[in-house]
Amino acid sequence: MPATRLDVALLAYTPEPLALVYAAFRQCYHAGFVADMWPRLLAGEISREKQAEFVAGVISSGHVSPIEHVSFTFAVEGVSRALTHQLVRHRIASYSQQSQRYVDASSFDYVLPPAIARIPEAKARYEHFMAQVADAYRDLKDILETNGRGTKAKEDARFVLPQAAETRIVVTMNCRALFNFFEHRCCARAQWEIRALADKMLALCRMTLPEVFTTAGAKCERLGHCPEGAKFTCGKYPPAKS
Amino acid sequence: MPATRLDVALLAYTPEPLALVYAAFRQCYHAGFVADMWPRLLAGEISREKQAEFVAGVISSGHVSPIEHVSFTFAVEGVSRALTHQLVRHRIASYSQQSQRYVDASSFDYVLPPAIARIPEAKARYEHFMAQVADAYRDLKDILETNGRGTKAKEDARFVLPQAAETRIVVTMNCRALFNFFEHRCCARAQWEIRALADKMLALCRMTLPEVFTTAGAKCERLGHCPEGAKFTCGKYPPAKS
Amino acid sequence: MPATRLDVALLAYTPEPLALVYAAFRQCYHAGFVADMWPRLLAGEISREKQAEFVAGVISSGHVSPIEHVSFTFAVEGVSRALTHQLVRHRIASYSQQSQRYVDASSFDYVLPPAIARIPEAKARYEHFMAQVADAYRDLKDILETNGRGTKAKEDARFVLPQAAETRIVVTMNCRALFNFFEHRCCARAQWEIRALADKMLALCRMTLPEVFTTAGAKCERLGHCPEGAKFTCGKYPPAKS
Amino acid sequence: MPATRLDVALLAYTPEPLALVYAAFRQCYHAGFVADMWPRLLAGEISREKQAEFVAGVISSGHVSPIEHVSFTFAVEGVSRALTHQLVRHRIASYSQQSQRYVDASSFDYVLPPAIARIPEAKARYEHFMAQVADAYRDLKDILETNGRGTKAKEDARFVLPQAAETRIVVTMNCRALFNFFEHRCCARAQWEIRALADKMLALCRMTLPEVFTTAGAKCERLGHCPEGAKFTCGKYPPAKS
Repeated sequence: MPATRLDVALLAYTPEPLALVYAAFRQCYHAGFVADMWPRLLAGEISREKQAEFVAGVISSGHVSPIEHVSFTFAVEGVSRALTHQLVRHRIASYSQQSQRYVDASSFDYVLPPAIARIPEAKARYEHFMAQVADAYRDLKDILETNGRGTKAKEDARFVLPQAAETRIVVTMNCRALFNFFEHRCCARAQWEIRALADKMLALCRMTLPEVFTTAGAKCERLGHCPEGAKFTCGKYPPAKS
Repeated sequence: MPATRLDVALLAYTPEPLALVYAAFRQCYHAGFVADMWPRLLAGEISREKQAEFVAGVISSGHVSPIEHVSFTFAVEGVSRALTHQLVRHRIASYSQQSQRYVDASSFDYVLPPAIARIPEAKARYEHFMAQVADAYRDLKDILETNGRGTKAKEDARFVLPQAAETRIVVTMNCRALFNFFEHRCCARAQWEIRALADKMLALCRMTLPEVFTTAGAKCERLGHCPEGAKFTCGKYPPAKS
Repeated sequence: MPATRLDVALLAYTPEPLALVYAAFRQCYHAGFVADMWPRLLAGEISREKQAEFVAGVISSGHVSPIEHVSFTFAVEGVSRALTHQLVRHRIASYSQQSQRYVDASSFDYVLPPAIARIPEAKARYEHFMAQVADAYRDLKDILETNGRGTKAKEDARFVLPQAAETRIVVTMNCRALFNFFEHRCCARAQWEIRALADKMLALCRMTLPEVFTTAGAKCERLGHCPEGAKFTCGKYPPAKS
Repeated sequence: MPATRLDVALLAYTPEPLALVYAAFRQCYHAGFVADMWPRLLAGEISREKQAEFVAGVISSGHVSPIEHVSFTFAVEGVSRALTHQLVRHRIASYSQQSQRYVDASSFDYVLPPAIARIPEAKARYEHFMAQVADAYRDLKDILETNGRGTKAKEDARFVLPQAAETRIVVTMNCRALFNFFEHRCCARAQWEIRALADKMLALCRMTLPEVFTTAGAKCERLGHCPEGAKFTCGKYPPAKS
């Protein structure tokens, strides 16, 4: 029942993502059929640089929908139910999450917030409490099973599990949804845990498809100023005048 | 810090919902403009019965999208974070939820599962544990504030709050999304808490717009058989043969 | 078979929209239950000004989701199929459109682009062509009916109808989707016809819910600069430096 | 300016689609982390048959969301604007369509409905009309350019283009959206053109991921009866009793 740590794996992404985004953009303005151009794209007849330049130009003009054709699928562990409750509020995405109704949590792991980890007194209090939770979960599961609740015992016992309880989730988002996710969650004002997740996801996206994700991140990185206003800004960029 | 109970209030819904659904359906098949028909609809020139009959006929033929034009907004309290985590997985909807980052939870209320409430030993264990949670939350919040975490103390302390912790949420869904929600969540296989919520929401919808919601509910109510299969059926309807 | 003109009617909107948006925002930050506050809101105990100020403050800080709880339903006529094909690309919305498969188009009306209307030679050519379309539609429908195609004759004959052919559509969008729609379609770079529609819809929204729609419109109106870049800007606002 | 014919190319799909769907399903019920299982899946340690059996079992129990993690991207040509206007009504999808504002249509191709092709008189009338359209388009474009409308001439001239005018579009849908698309559009009641597209897309999906798409198609194929009712059924399956 130890504290856990964030782990993000990129399970899959749409193959040839730059070529696909390029082809989708081209179809909008081009008299021919991109399926005819596709084999030449895969054969490298149009250079990656040229594709990237075209894509960057159209995106910067505000036409972003073609990046939706490319999706990324991540497997995430070492995150809390507090995080996933926030995460699944992003509606243009697909989720498959470990179920507390079906998976036994008798020896659940938990997320330890850094601010608590840094203060020995807080950390001790937190760890002491997590042991109390595990006791309560096991006790309740036992009592419920003894009283004939069968496989539903987990379903009721889990009401004692903390927001901190570790969960695992598979997440698929397309590039446009990812841009939106990063705008909100890479911001210094985002809650620390989901921000750490967003930063890791962005790093994986940048590694895989740098030509598209170069401008992704908190809103300020793209705008050059902070839209959160003077009261809330982290100070990295000057706030927008109003 | 007592156990709480489910409360659902219908804050708002699209006015003249039957007439609006009727008008939207008519626009699909009608040569004229429904805005010209609208004042006559509001004046009652086409009877409610006739509108209902037309709407029921088109819905039963599989053309359901016009019911999307009508939305319902509910305010919900007395539900757990376990419930809202399931609820917000319904993506064609809008949510505004009480934030554990901003609202102090020192004397949080909690949901008591009926199966636990029925067993005195389980109930005592559960209540004892909830008092431990409140202690842990307050202790951690104190320590964090003492150590300069300020308004962020709540954000970290809430990691100890249980899935059972009460939350409040405002939910808007259109009728089509509500039909889908009821199909899944009014089923006897749905988890008890979200099923209780779905039943209350359905009762409010039926009271407000009976002509449309008469066929809403668990899938079996409409199909006349149970699509969950022989292994999972509750027995109310015979399972589908396969 | 004359040229038609744009008509937009606001059929319905969520009642008490400012109070509902205010209540949804308050639920996020408030320890109590907004359903308890709701009767007092309806009774005017919190002034419209105070509600508007609160709502404007939260929106400007970037928290906009609560405006989704309010929806507007418009009936639109005098628009072309070219327009509705663009319109229905806005996916967070509900549509009920007049069907060319079911509604006879023998004497269809059509949209006359202003640039064509302004040039007598172009206008004459356009009108001459529209008469040719009507002839072709009727001829084909006759031939198909004579050859036993029955009610499907309309379905095939409509292939000759022009993009200009008038259509009617019922559209529901929530406020957040409307903001997005206006950002793109009230811009001077938008195509003239959908821009005219967007301008009319915005005027109706502003009349109904001025407190929320005061900042809606093309992106530049909110930003104070033009994000389309030096090459595409209409010049109303200075382009963003890059 | 000849009649065109439908062409559908599968540009891309999520790699290892069966393994990904299997992994996402497993994450819901499994105590471990699917990222740890992933290399073993790719190495073939769990047979395709076993994966398929597990996936089929969970889908048939009504739990379908994990198939959303896999997307397919098609390039489509030889279809009419009538078709794409229907197609883009499917909102859980991404589209990049050839623009009539930017692409010159002076020698546009067009879709010829089979019912018209089969009747020589109808075919001749149709072809005669298409030549009239091309004349009108070129005349109007010329007049508008002569009168200083510049690159906007295409934008206005296209109002004369018929619903039959060929367009090209890149479409991405996830498997769950594809199932829904096939349910509606592979039905004998669907309009012939979009049904032909749906049939081709389904054939490509079945070839690529047979384990998942085996049960996809018109609703009747899965239900074993026709839900369209006695009045509308094509007769392939008996209508549902009501």
